[in-house]
Amino acid sequence: MAAQSSNPLWLYDTTLRDGAQREGLTLSISDKLRIARQLDQLGVPFIEGGWPGANPKDVQFFWQLREEPLTQAEVVAFCFTRRPGKTAATDPMLQPILAAGTRWVTIVGKTWDLQVTEGLKTSLDENLEMIRDTISYLRMHDRRVVYDAEHWFDGFKHNPTYALETLKTAYDAGAEWLTLCDTNGGSLPQDIDRVVHAVLDYLPAAPLGIHTHNDGELAVANAIAAVQAGARMVQGTINGYGERCGNANLCSLIPNLQLKLGYDCLAIAQLANLTETSRFVSEVVNLAPDDHAAFVGLSAFAHKGGLHVSAVERNPITYEHIQPELVGNSRRIVISEQAGMSNVLAKARSLGIELDKHDPACRQILERLKNLEHEGYQFEAAEASFELLMREALGQRLQPFEVKGFQVHYDMLPGIPLPVCAVGDWRSQSLATIKVRVNGHNILEAAEGNGPVSALDAALRKALVNFYPEIRAFSLTDYKVRILDGAAGTSANTRVLIESSDGYQRWRTVGVSCNILEASYQAVVEGLEYGLFLQRQAKTALTVS
Amino acid sequence: MAAQSSNPLWLYDTTLRDGAQREGLTLSISDKLRIARQLDQLGVPFIEGGWPGANPKDVQFFWQLREEPLTQAEVVAFCFTRRPGKTAATDPMLQPILAAGTRWVTIVGKTWDLQVTEGLKTSLDENLEMIRDTISYLRMHDRRVVYDAEHWFDGFKHNPTYALETLKTAYDAGAEWLTLCDTNGGSLPQDIDRVVHAVLDYLPAAPLGIHTHNDGELAVANAIAAVQAGARMVQGTINGYGERCGNANLCSLIPNLQLKLGYDCLAIAQLANLTETSRFVSEVVNLAPDDHAAFVGLSAFAHKGGLHVSAVERNPITYEHIQPELVGNSRRIVISEQAGMSNVLAKARSLGIELDKHDPACRQILERLKNLEHEGYQFEAAEASFELLMREALGQRLQPFEVKGFQVHYDMLPGIPLPVCAVGDWRSQSLATIKVRVNGHNILEAAEGNGPVSALDAALRKALVNFYPEIRAFSLTDYKVRILDGAAGTSANTRVLIESSDGYQRWRTVGVSCNILEASYQAVVEGLEYGLFLQRQAKTALTVS
Repeated sequence: MAAQSSNPLWLYDTTLRDGAQREGLTLSISDKLRIARQLDQLGVPFIEGGWPGANPKDVQFFWQLREEPLTQAEVVAFCFTRRPGKTAATDPMLQPILAAGTRWVTIVGKTWDLQVTEGLKTSLDENLEMIRDTISYLRMHDRRVVYDAEHWFDGFKHNPTYALETLKTAYDAGAEWLTLCDTNGGSLPQDIDRVVHAVLDYLPAAPLGIHTHNDGELAVANAIAAVQAGARMVQGTINGYGERCGNANLCSLIPNLQLKLGYDCLAIAQLANLTETSRFVSEVVNLAPDDHAAFVGLSAFAHKGGLHVSAVERNPITYEHIQPELVGNSRRIVISEQAGMSNVLAKARSLGIELDKHDPACRQILERLKNLEHEGYQFEAAEASFELLMREALGQRLQPFEVKGFQVHYDMLPGIPLPVCAVGDWRSQSLATIKVRVNGHNILEAAEGNGPVSALDAALRKALVNFYPEIRAFSLTDYKVRILDGAAGTSANTRVLIESSDGYQRWRTVGVSCNILEASYQAVVEGLEYGLFLQRQAKTALTVS
Repeated sequence: MAAQSSNPLWLYDTTLRDGAQREGLTLSISDKLRIARQLDQLGVPFIEGGWPGANPKDVQFFWQLREEPLTQAEVVAFCFTRRPGKTAATDPMLQPILAAGTRWVTIVGKTWDLQVTEGLKTSLDENLEMIRDTISYLRMHDRRVVYDAEHWFDGFKHNPTYALETLKTAYDAGAEWLTLCDTNGGSLPQDIDRVVHAVLDYLPAAPLGIHTHNDGELAVANAIAAVQAGARMVQGTINGYGERCGNANLCSLIPNLQLKLGYDCLAIAQLANLTETSRFVSEVVNLAPDDHAAFVGLSAFAHKGGLHVSAVERNPITYEHIQPELVGNSRRIVISEQAGMSNVLAKARSLGIELDKHDPACRQILERLKNLEHEGYQFEAAEASFELLMREALGQRLQPFEVKGFQVHYDMLPGIPLPVCAVGDWRSQSLATIKVRVNGHNILEAAEGNGPVSALDAALRKALVNFYPEIRAFSLTDYKVRILDGAAGTSANTRVLIESSDGYQRWRTVGVSCNILEASYQAVVEGLEYGLFLQRQAKTALTVS
């Protein structure tokens, strides 16, 4: 939407590439796809998907997006300039970039003379040629190009003439965006302001982008300074994930730029998905959300009891720098009923359930939700569990089976265990027995598995498959565990998120317990139940139509 | 030391007062005393201790400091202006402030007309009188006064004339510092700059302080903007703790102001205690340190990737915005998928192991690393496991014990399980038996736990504690589980990362298996082994010196 607006600003998300550089953060292909689709919904125009060729995962990611494209966002392939002493046409590095089939490609090149001579061990002229050659090669193949000027601000400080030359080379070669990168993250807003103005004096027509890092806890301020000095593209990541201290945090940048400085980044309705997006991404990457994050944190609009609170409610603007609802967050004064209720109604709508605000079931759902969230449940990334909870309150939950109890036994025999074992592996055996009541029958079943959870899952399926043959098509496609209270170590409360699939659709369920088996069991059981629920819905839809 | 310097800046720490407003943060008196002494050592000139009278804890805190004073810092008592319709002399609120016996007192007063009339429900003139009366009363009792102008920036925006009147009133009544507070944390650096200049036009001689909050992720940038506009006192908290999104983070502010802008905040030797102070405070308040914090985070100077790493070591200034040692942090070479020989060598050096590139052990380590990473191990977040691997290849790994085998049994009885259960909870029982060989003895032990992993951990500790009593001090501080190949669901390969602590140091170990119990077991065992290794190292160091 930025395009036709009066004061447009282009957002460029690099969570999937630079964000994934964060220590300890690893993304599966399906993680990357889920995040990309969430960003697409949020309305981010550019999504950097990764470096095809650098690893097979990224190649496959771009292929999958070609099969099922995003609705509006441009997914961008990222790559370095071609290597010294080669030509772009002959450098194998660039073939997977073209093969990725994106309309846009981001090429990163060296700005800083020291890094050209010491890092790349090549000449300053060859570096210019690498930039020119790579970009024109991509333009020749009808790619649109963003040029990332790596180490821009440090390079410019040491040798402005050469730094500007690299930028001009990229511009003349046909790059449509020139991104100034504070790669080491050490710049101050005043430096950014001065340097951006210097660039615009030299290349007045250049469309500039800004890419900042948080090594001075100034990434957001630096990006804002660049925009105010004339940059029109802002690069960052959700929750500020990134190498070392992270990248500029889009969850803080967007509201600052849009609500406080009047730039158009997202449609106002999309901005209201920012908090959900932040929490969704943290769930997918399996990192605890920062409750104290600006704008989107659980505590960002928390008010303590007493006089203050009534004052806040009388006159919020005197105690809140923005309306929390604008970013999809809410004031927290022991969760004001309105906020909670509107959440429930919104979630119900998103599930196609029309709820009446005055329906007593509504209050019931809200109560249950509050209790469960207090216990550590989290429904942002487990819609299936939330829908089951909601349908239960509405008397629409039909329990296709009931687990009466189960046992799991695990026995590790001596010998160094291989990390990858097959079912029935002699070295380590997990055995589960389960008792299930289904259609008036008590079924007792036992099964083996690679681990206790898969054994439990197998036993449950064995018990149900004669009654519900469709579960043969179900599979568990992801399984995440999070400890909710680090301090308590392995005795702490555990949240398990499970993703199931019937080959067509995927759904996610959640379980919470101090016992990982217990939590897994809850999620597995709801996963099967929800799958059966979907099947029945599909059947009804068919008979109706 | 700031006093006699050329470009002095006064630090004012409010961790013990405003910082303690953070949700979930509670401080005992001894916590407060330990933090105060640490800040005193660091060289912070002003330490806000709390509000004597508001709670007995703060009264006692000030008493104890009178018995054992700080070496150089001024501890400051905090209080509101006297209440409407009273006099300072008769308002009981001010008696405990004098009784606290501090040289300095900070008085906070209202700036914003709306909050005077709507919040305090009094007249604008009475508010001025409250400021004047309170400050002159304290001056009469030989107290030196800092005046905090609450909601300054919002108040000034709505009614600059009245806002400036409140400030002038405080100044004329004898306040020696006027602190401009961005209480709601919503200001942008440009606002701060403009307003500070406006204040200095109105009161050119006024010694200004700045107090910012992080609601826009701009607290650090805003404080810097104020200093550059003329403020000479900076208020903040260690690690940015504070209400909602926190206060300005002194751990980021100090290095930015001192190393990048040339202000004198601390002696350069004291600055080198910053990282230790940050981690010490997070230990005392029992919050996990932010590994990605600017300057002081564990990852703040972490480097990945082979080529890059050798470049960093050749020429650090091209990849690091400051020398980590200046703030007491250190460069960390991260062992990641792209691990090359140079990473291994660099990592070894950082562990104090001198490795020769041509030593066959080197290639052996690299090979093992590649295989393990292929199997799903990830060492970037598990240096302890990596060090054990490395020492094994060098024949320096002494196995303090050997696990011969174990069994885990879990039994879920009917009934809806609560998510938070206690050990021995009748509804769900986990029992582990383990066989360990240690110092030539075979030990068989059994233990119960909330879950299978904690039962296993407990059984192992029981088996070892008689031989290694030091493990009593070890605890598991974090436990993370990740499924490596989503498609395979609960049968997929599982990576478990465990963080252990002996109360002083934290170390991380990793385990991988298709069986979550197996993977957890590996990480738990290596966690204990590495802890014992650290203890032995410490002992040797002692006997050597």
